[in-house]
Amino acid sequence: MNGAHSLVRTLVAGGVDTCFMNPGTSEMHFVAALDGVPDMRGVLALFEGVATGAADGYARMRGTPAAVLLHLGPGLGNGLANLHNARKARVPVVVIVGDHALPHLQYDAPLTSDIETVARNVSPGWVHRSMATVDLGRDAAAAIAAAMGPPPQVATLILPADVSWTDGGVDGEHTVPKQRAAVDGDVIERIARVLRAGEPTALFLGGVALGERGVRAAGRIAAATGAQLLAETFPTRQDRGAGLPEPTRLAYLAEFAVMQLQPLRHLVLVDAASPVSFFAYPGKESDLVPATCEVHELGLPAQGLDIVGALEQLADALGAPPAEDAPAGARPERPTGALTAQTLAAAVAATLPEGAIVSDEAATSGLFLAGATADAPRHSWLCLTGGSIGQGMPLAIGAAVACPDRRVLNVEADGSSLYTLQSLWTQSREGLDVTTVICNNRSYSVLNMELQRVGADAVGPKALDMLDLQRPDIDFVSLAKGLGVPAVRVDTADDLTRELERSYSESGPRLIEAMVPPII
Amino acid sequence: MNGAHSLVRTLVAGGVDTCFMNPGTSEMHFVAALDGVPDMRGVLALFEGVATGAADGYARMRGTPAAVLLHLGPGLGNGLANLHNARKARVPVVVIVGDHALPHLQYDAPLTSDIETVARNVSPGWVHRSMATVDLGRDAAAAIAAAMGPPPQVATLILPADVSWTDGGVDGEHTVPKQRAAVDGDVIERIARVLRAGEPTALFLGGVALGERGVRAAGRIAAATGAQLLAETFPTRQDRGAGLPEPTRLAYLAEFAVMQLQPLRHLVLVDAASPVSFFAYPGKESDLVPATCEVHELGLPAQGLDIVGALEQLADALGAPPAEDAPAGARPERPTGALTAQTLAAAVAATLPEGAIVSDEAATSGLFLAGATADAPRHSWLCLTGGSIGQGMPLAIGAAVACPDRRVLNVEADGSSLYTLQSLWTQSREGLDVTTVICNNRSYSVLNMELQRVGADAVGPKALDMLDLQRPDIDFVSLAKGLGVPAVRVDTADDLTRELERSYSESGPRLIEAMVPPII
Repeated sequence: MNGAHSLVRTLVAGGVDTCFMNPGTSEMHFVAALDGVPDMRGVLALFEGVATGAADGYARMRGTPAAVLLHLGPGLGNGLANLHNARKARVPVVVIVGDHALPHLQYDAPLTSDIETVARNVSPGWVHRSMATVDLGRDAAAAIAAAMGPPPQVATLILPADVSWTDGGVDGEHTVPKQRAAVDGDVIERIARVLRAGEPTALFLGGVALGERGVRAAGRIAAATGAQLLAETFPTRQDRGAGLPEPTRLAYLAEFAVMQLQPLRHLVLVDAASPVSFFAYPGKESDLVPATCEVHELGLPAQGLDIVGALEQLADALGAPPAEDAPAGARPERPTGALTAQTLAAAVAATLPEGAIVSDEAATSGLFLAGATADAPRHSWLCLTGGSIGQGMPLAIGAAVACPDRRVLNVEADGSSLYTLQSLWTQSREGLDVTTVICNNRSYSVLNMELQRVGADAVGPKALDMLDLQRPDIDFVSLAKGLGVPAVRVDTADDLTRELERSYSESGPRLIEAMVPPII
Repeated sequence: MNGAHSLVRTLVAGGVDTCFMNPGTSEMHFVAALDGVPDMRGVLALFEGVATGAADGYARMRGTPAAVLLHLGPGLGNGLANLHNARKARVPVVVIVGDHALPHLQYDAPLTSDIETVARNVSPGWVHRSMATVDLGRDAAAAIAAAMGPPPQVATLILPADVSWTDGGVDGEHTVPKQRAAVDGDVIERIARVLRAGEPTALFLGGVALGERGVRAAGRIAAATGAQLLAETFPTRQDRGAGLPEPTRLAYLAEFAVMQLQPLRHLVLVDAASPVSFFAYPGKESDLVPATCEVHELGLPAQGLDIVGALEQLADALGAPPAEDAPAGARPERPTGALTAQTLAAAVAATLPEGAIVSDEAATSGLFLAGATADAPRHSWLCLTGGSIGQGMPLAIGAAVACPDRRVLNVEADGSSLYTLQSLWTQSREGLDVTTVICNNRSYSVLNMELQRVGADAVGPKALDMLDLQRPDIDFVSLAKGLGVPAVRVDTADDLTRELERSYSESGPRLIEAMVPPII
């Protein structure tokens, strides 16, 4: 058994049975090993950023890591942006970066580079180069353990080609997964006292707190104490929809977030960091919490604590009655007339299927989406937690692979889609039930807004040209066709609604190019 | 004058008047400054890898750097693969990576990451974070000087948003560019003695030695001594065509390269490193030079010496007569019949316009290209020096921007094109005279070959599926249309020849999807 074979066997034995990949020569033994390990599924991507984003989406829905196979330093570079997002979302990913055979490195061949420097950007906690075939299985088991945490993280295993091709591989032994540590009882009691005091208080929910159990427990606390429920601006995964408590998202624009936080005297961090603005702006504070508000920590993301258990204990300590589903609101009417950001949101809300997974990278066009869908049937919502655009389409791949029985809806900004559009090909190849709505407003609309917010006043035609996507217009129906995904363009809310329903009624991927005017 | 303004002014004053960019919020002041500095040209890309590859192509043709503007660590990640290629090609690039305002970094906002670690991968020699507005102009001048070398390199300037937006910018002063140091006379004399001895000897030409002056001088030496002229496998830029001496390229496949080197007793390195195999293979040597061959150094790439001057001195020392253009060979006939790698090469050779620039990322489909075009009209040939695929289309952008009077022909493998296909949009936007030929063989053909060469014998259907681009077939005509470039599919050599000529007779970009069967 060569090293590659032991690696793939160890991954599968450790529950990592899906590998998103864009391999090259140095990874050929890993690829060849796929046939010897029937339970490993290889999913090919045309670009590394598709593979890494898919691994993120998979982990958000499964809670366990997928593997990603990349080709040397440049391949890791191409996958870096979506690994950045995975790091910020605190999901587990096992990244395997092939490298030259160890004796080849001294020659500085064309593809030689310092992989470790790049890997540290996304894997500050665990980067390891496997140095001997006999150790590779053990290293793979360690990579899975490191990725799982808690807290979960991106773990990067660098795999020299000769370590992979040499005989003498040994299956790695898996340790018992670590459990999240319980939150200290004193902390829970202290926060219970804050909540009992009845001053204006909010729970600021992030990370694992936004799963179904977490929001139910948070809902009990809110019902018992009157505390407000706030959620991170871009949750990793929020389980929501009819009957579940719906925390209010903290606004992206710092001006509005400050207004949300201003009335509070206490903010309790629940697997979330204290809120700061996304970017800095001249003359504005980055820290969004007013001086008159005290911040309490039930648990921070970096601690990897059992936040859900702590929320349930907290609810019990407050004597909150058990969670009950709120009565489901009525579905909104199917919208008609002009296509706008509002009617787009209404169309999604009017049609979203039970159990859907929404990959939301709609940027400015998605402003009304979350609000409109709060009472839609139960679904999971995935956001751009790390802020690096080009995530939405790959994330949809990973979610669809992880949950083949659930429909995935990817609402995607035009500019953002063009970083990882190759995702459509993998969606077609794997027959994934992904509906993609491209919100085509023909500009980097968010930058038009940011240009003013950063105080760049004297803006001329050359600057505006750098935010413009109209020269030439991009035809997403042609692009989808080129990558094997059937597509249609819609100009009205009626057509969008009908095409959404049509896509949900068919299997396989479909793309809808929605001509939505800019909101600003 | 704010920092951004002083930065753009200093760039232009230093000869850096083109900036390829994919900016975000933290770069908005740089973008706003474009209108205040009329001589700076901003070229927008939909993806960072397009911008960095374009800067590489620009520098290969101009010899001076373009700037690239990227958005924080993830933007640098997206641009990293083509910066890797630029590093290996030893061309000058000034990379400007926007970052959060300095006081914002402590809050670990979503887009915060350790940019320096990533930058060191491609800029080991010069990474600098500008810490104060007053210093920014000076830092920009230093970045240009660092990029120019010699040897040229990728220089990375990290630009915090507040350093950019604050008033108090000062134009940077430019130092006199450093000249390449002369090669020591003793070294030239020693190599002259080797050449005079008449043993089997080759000059191994790379880097700047493959420009017109370099190959002319090398041709004089070969004519006077009988020395063979070999060239690096993937030159940064080779000026070639009718009348110019044509060095033989060292083969990509180590098996063949060893056969080329076996007869030699002396190998003289001329701005090239000693030849090694691209990848390592089980049981094969990485060092391709036989034990019976002595290696001599006229100059190594890392030394940044005046290699062209040294070649001319060497030719004079050998009493070689002045260079004369060889009589131009006849143009090959226009090919007819089936489209194959051979007839594709013949079609290019039969039609290549005078002064063309060829961006060659044709991979296996390009096997016969260089041979067929040696007698074509004078042209420049750009290769995948760093080995990270996805370079050819961006490189074509940069070459076309740098040389608006020359036609660019990008011969591109299907798999490789899909890393940076967004390039077509920028080609359309800027009206660039780029003809793209996609060699569509519906597979990662090179990996089918490598899979066998690395000794992965027992290859099953799952492995082969990872090298296959037929599920679904990709329609490049639709993809080009989607990005604003007119396109046509051809199935015969006759049609390819006709469409090449048509593209050369029209201005603006055009794509030809050539259905070329795999060579293996």
